[in-house]
Amino acid sequence: MKNAIKPYKKDSQHSYASGAYAVIELLYTRPEIVESVVIHSSYRDTDGLLELCRMKSVEVLKDDRMFKRINQKENTYVLALFSKYDCKLSDSAPHVVLVNPSDMGNLGSVIRTLAGVNITNLAIITPAADIWNPKTIRASMGALFRLEIVQYDSIEAYRDFFKTHKLYPFMLDGKVQLGVESCPKDVRYSLVFGNEATGLPDYYHNIGTSVKLLQSHMVDSLNLSVAVGIGSFLFASANGQI
Amino acid sequence: MKNAIKPYKKDSQHSYASGAYAVIELLYTRPEIVESVVIHSSYRDTDGLLELCRMKSVEVLKDDRMFKRINQKENTYVLALFSKYDCKLSDSAPHVVLVNPSDMGNLGSVIRTLAGVNITNLAIITPAADIWNPKTIRASMGALFRLEIVQYDSIEAYRDFFKTHKLYPFMLDGKVQLGVESCPKDVRYSLVFGNEATGLPDYYHNIGTSVKLLQSHMVDSLNLSVAVGIGSFLFASANGQI
Repeated sequence: MKNAIKPYKKDSQHSYASGAYAVIELLYTRPEIVESVVIHSSYRDTDGLLELCRMKSVEVLKDDRMFKRINQKENTYVLALFSKYDCKLSDSAPHVVLVNPSDMGNLGSVIRTLAGVNITNLAIITPAADIWNPKTIRASMGALFRLEIVQYDSIEAYRDFFKTHKLYPFMLDGKVQLGVESCPKDVRYSLVFGNEATGLPDYYHNIGTSVKLLQSHMVDSLNLSVAVGIGSFLFASANGQI
Repeated sequence: MKNAIKPYKKDSQHSYASGAYAVIELLYTRPEIVESVVIHSSYRDTDGLLELCRMKSVEVLKDDRMFKRINQKENTYVLALFSKYDCKLSDSAPHVVLVNPSDMGNLGSVIRTLAGVNITNLAIITPAADIWNPKTIRASMGALFRLEIVQYDSIEAYRDFFKTHKLYPFMLDGKVQLGVESCPKDVRYSLVFGNEATGLPDYYHNIGTSVKLLQSHMVDSLNLSVAVGIGSFLFASANGQI
């Protein structure tokens, strides 16, 4: 029996991408995991999506009821149902580590930014917002499918796998000020960012070189997706990765 | 008669800041425009807000009905009603120019970021999201009160006022690649960013040095608040402003 698209559940083996942009990203990057593409009768294919489905041998279903059934807030007319998949982080590439990110919109936005700066390995320390939730995927505009994303129970569990990566925790009282002229040069680095509301606990001072983005005294902190954007851009640009 | 707090309207001479953090920012930075602070019976003053009101001679009202009346989605228990005020951009400081920003959340987030990188002069080309809407103020976490923000009908109207500022329009086909080692050194610069969905039209190539953030081919663009974060950080850091 076919897997019907239902409202997404975290423990399901499936999820879906909604909106033409994210569906096209998925079809280009990971066509093998796509079960089917569903279109609404109001869908107008201005992006060559249906031709892409044919090229990738992906089944296309027309079913207006499915869009009601999943009860999404966004008005999208195209969905792709896919099977969740396992990822693997590269031992030789830079990483970003998000510790307990709690908001799916922020997480998706960070993922899109990381694809933009060519950092394609993301570790997430749980508990964390669900990467597979359609909201996360949509906020990433499908860039999620470009990255390798692996979840770990603790920062120690992550470090056990990547002992040669040098850790740079971003902290409001970080020891090294980070600006355009002070960005460390490194090949295997891990940029570590804390939760939106609480940042990283003091403990993180001991596990690497804590850094602090140059910042005025007018705000207590930058928001997470902006901080990741600036920090990852500085490192990727200073180290020739973009 | 006192100005009662009603649901916000764009053409009103008043607006309000909601949440303790934004209210405190307002009381510290522009106490003279505050008409009154309103607290809900559930409000617990853990931040010294009431003492700050006394110091600044601001009237505090207790009125639970007001919180229902304004019908806000956020659960906040403190509001500050204030009069809108006029701002003036500095002729000797760097500016950011937002052309037709359409989303209040993005606009607030950009404002907070600009306060964080010490760029306190913001020009907005209309039509644009309403800077005075409580949603914008809340998204800025009150940083809006730290900035000078002036609206102009067109980029030409803005340029007439600031003829010596050098314009850097951020464009996906910008002529100069912008990274940590290629950021222009300048004193009076204006970083110009387009609308979230459409960016800047071609015309902007002719009014300054168009720049493009280094970026992988995996995404078509970075989101607006991330792009402003990276671009303004690069310029402010490279030019010693933070």
